[in-house]
Amino acid sequence: MKLLQVDTLEEARSKLRKAAEQVPLRTEEIPISQAFGRILAQDVCAGEPIPSFRRSSVDGYAVRSADTAGATESIPVFLEIVEDVAIGHPALAPVGPGMCSYVPTGGMIPEGADAMVMVEYSELFDENHVAINTAVSSGRFVVDVGEDMKTGELVLSRGTQIGPAQVGALAAVGTDRILVYRPWRVAVISTGDELVPVESVPGPGQVRDINTWALGGCVAQCGMELVLARALEDQEDRLEETVRQAVETCDLLLVSGGSSQGKKDVTMEVLDRVSGGGVFTHGLALKPGKPTILGCDRAEGTILAGLPGHPSAALTVFCLLFRWLWRQVTGQPEETPVLAHMETNLASAAGKATCLPVKLIPEGKALLARPILGKSGLITTLSEADGYILVDMNREGLKKGEPVWVRRYF
Amino acid sequence: MKLLQVDTLEEARSKLRKAAEQVPLRTEEIPISQAFGRILAQDVCAGEPIPSFRRSSVDGYAVRSADTAGATESIPVFLEIVEDVAIGHPALAPVGPGMCSYVPTGGMIPEGADAMVMVEYSELFDENHVAINTAVSSGRFVVDVGEDMKTGELVLSRGTQIGPAQVGALAAVGTDRILVYRPWRVAVISTGDELVPVESVPGPGQVRDINTWALGGCVAQCGMELVLARALEDQEDRLEETVRQAVETCDLLLVSGGSSQGKKDVTMEVLDRVSGGGVFTHGLALKPGKPTILGCDRAEGTILAGLPGHPSAALTVFCLLFRWLWRQVTGQPEETPVLAHMETNLASAAGKATCLPVKLIPEGKALLARPILGKSGLITTLSEADGYILVDMNREGLKKGEPVWVRRYF
Repeated sequence: MKLLQVDTLEEARSKLRKAAEQVPLRTEEIPISQAFGRILAQDVCAGEPIPSFRRSSVDGYAVRSADTAGATESIPVFLEIVEDVAIGHPALAPVGPGMCSYVPTGGMIPEGADAMVMVEYSELFDENHVAINTAVSSGRFVVDVGEDMKTGELVLSRGTQIGPAQVGALAAVGTDRILVYRPWRVAVISTGDELVPVESVPGPGQVRDINTWALGGCVAQCGMELVLARALEDQEDRLEETVRQAVETCDLLLVSGGSSQGKKDVTMEVLDRVSGGGVFTHGLALKPGKPTILGCDRAEGTILAGLPGHPSAALTVFCLLFRWLWRQVTGQPEETPVLAHMETNLASAAGKATCLPVKLIPEGKALLARPILGKSGLITTLSEADGYILVDMNREGLKKGEPVWVRRYF
Repeated sequence: MKLLQVDTLEEARSKLRKAAEQVPLRTEEIPISQAFGRILAQDVCAGEPIPSFRRSSVDGYAVRSADTAGATESIPVFLEIVEDVAIGHPALAPVGPGMCSYVPTGGMIPEGADAMVMVEYSELFDENHVAINTAVSSGRFVVDVGEDMKTGELVLSRGTQIGPAQVGALAAVGTDRILVYRPWRVAVISTGDELVPVESVPGPGQVRDINTWALGGCVAQCGMELVLARALEDQEDRLEETVRQAVETCDLLLVSGGSSQGKKDVTMEVLDRVSGGGVFTHGLALKPGKPTILGCDRAEGTILAGLPGHPSAALTVFCLLFRWLWRQVTGQPEETPVLAHMETNLASAAGKATCLPVKLIPEGKALLARPILGKSGLITTLSEADGYILVDMNREGLKKGEPVWVRRYF
């Protein structure tokens, strides 16, 4: 396999990042009812303080804390109730010395009061008086104006993916429409004369088409839009025609198979021809993932890739390059990796980085990383994995007990 | 707040697990094109060995390994090429002593051959002869029949969520339709006279309705189906009417707010009345999450819950009880927690479990858990969290440097 321009993972990422500047990144404004899973294309700040009034965090009596000094169950303090504050309504009567108001959880604390006494620590004496049998300090059970968010405070930053808590935060600050990124449109083409459809029984020499499904799943999981997913035979003119059509409408085109240097490996030639010489990487110093082709059609604003035919290699390259790239361009922060310790020694090839699938095994007060081995590159190595370890190209292996950072594939 | 039946988290979970036996768990058969994100309701096994023929994992020559003994670049071995095996087609000619066949990556290895020589270690001598300049051991670059999966081998088990690699694994074994769980139908009712819609500016004493949005997001993220999401004022007959209607069509009904024992807290009475006395828990020994109500309408097969009005408390209870329950009934394995170490000392209340939101901070060869504090229970404590630590009810705090297990909320 004579590859033309073998890059390290870092070199390939750097070139892709630059190529992505040619690909339009569109945004759209949507209501938050449709925001779930989308990526924010704007910062969101609080337009007013939250809460906008002093709120009680308990059911009880709003008091002047000084009035409760020394109060106990045996020697309670008697206070006059001047108002029964209704939830959702303003507190109207100021609380002067010797006074208090009933305030429910979430209710507004009246002027003059500076603390709450929980209802459990009180006893109604008559309709207008209550016995308080505990002393409270100033600020007790009071949520101050702006304590959650101050005016102008950053609530969510660009690149945040909207999950349940984020939808809640948007609702809290009254943001009912947001600007999000429109997903890249992606085409997946799986090539190989050996491929038969899922519903077929493969004959001698044949295997079922896995990559169309698995790569299509990757695209969806990243929040990109799958606009084409098709298996093709190894036929150069048919591939070229399909690629030319796809490039016109897609932001990212993935061709799996035919990316090596075998007799029928025409992906490199086709991608380079269609993009007018736009291929900049042929070969990745990554195991698995060596036969990877990267390029850009600058005229159409499309990134082109040839991925390995082995399903687990194709998914690994997708994850390390294209999931990474989409997160980069949309400003998504790097995901926090998990710290684990190697369960066993493991040799790796020097001279190229190794992406090692692992299972995470909690054991006592330790989290162990158990390598999933298998030479064939079938999909099961990934369907069982909790994540991967990226072994540096200068390392010749990992030692049992060594700390390792584990990252998620998807 | 006088609660009737305060349960620990474990007691509440155990009661919910039992109550869930009353709730129908339906399945449906779908094509794998729609399987993404769904939960398998069946085990999937391989119907035939994969691969079904001996495959090459490189481009090169299929040889009898014994023939290559002692071969080097200076003293190569010459072999007769008896076939050029095409990808996707059977290998027809057996390889006898002194013979070989060209086989591309993924191609079928002919009878008689037991190893592959990579094309880089060969040189064509004439049309029918090749010089092999390396010795290979038996089995080199050969993927055996059934090496990926044997007939009958378990590929994916019940309770697996279908992601990219799982879709690929289903395609590999020719499973084009699968049995998955139908999502529970969930109603979310957010109660409180203080609530105003997101697009409103809250007046004195008012706040925007967060829980309808955030809990709705939780339901969607779990893969359940949100069939109703509505905010209501604190009006007992109106709440009862809405609950009665929802119970008829829902598997799970969540009412947030009004779950404590304040003057207007009617959720407990309404849920108990509608379910014919089906409430079994009123109060959870969990911080946050104390005012939690759990019950079951056995006649309708619906689980009923009153959640705290504080958004972060409502989401915490949803995650620890209902996300947990849905994963339990559908057989999803417990998610592997992350091991981290406390960045600071932290006090917690003895006598109840504490669910502490944390950020994970990688630092050198350590992963630190930084508590996110905030007494008000607003949503931002969760929108910033990477996960939570569950502090046992018998602990009075956590020490700096102590190892802790961090779990995801969503």
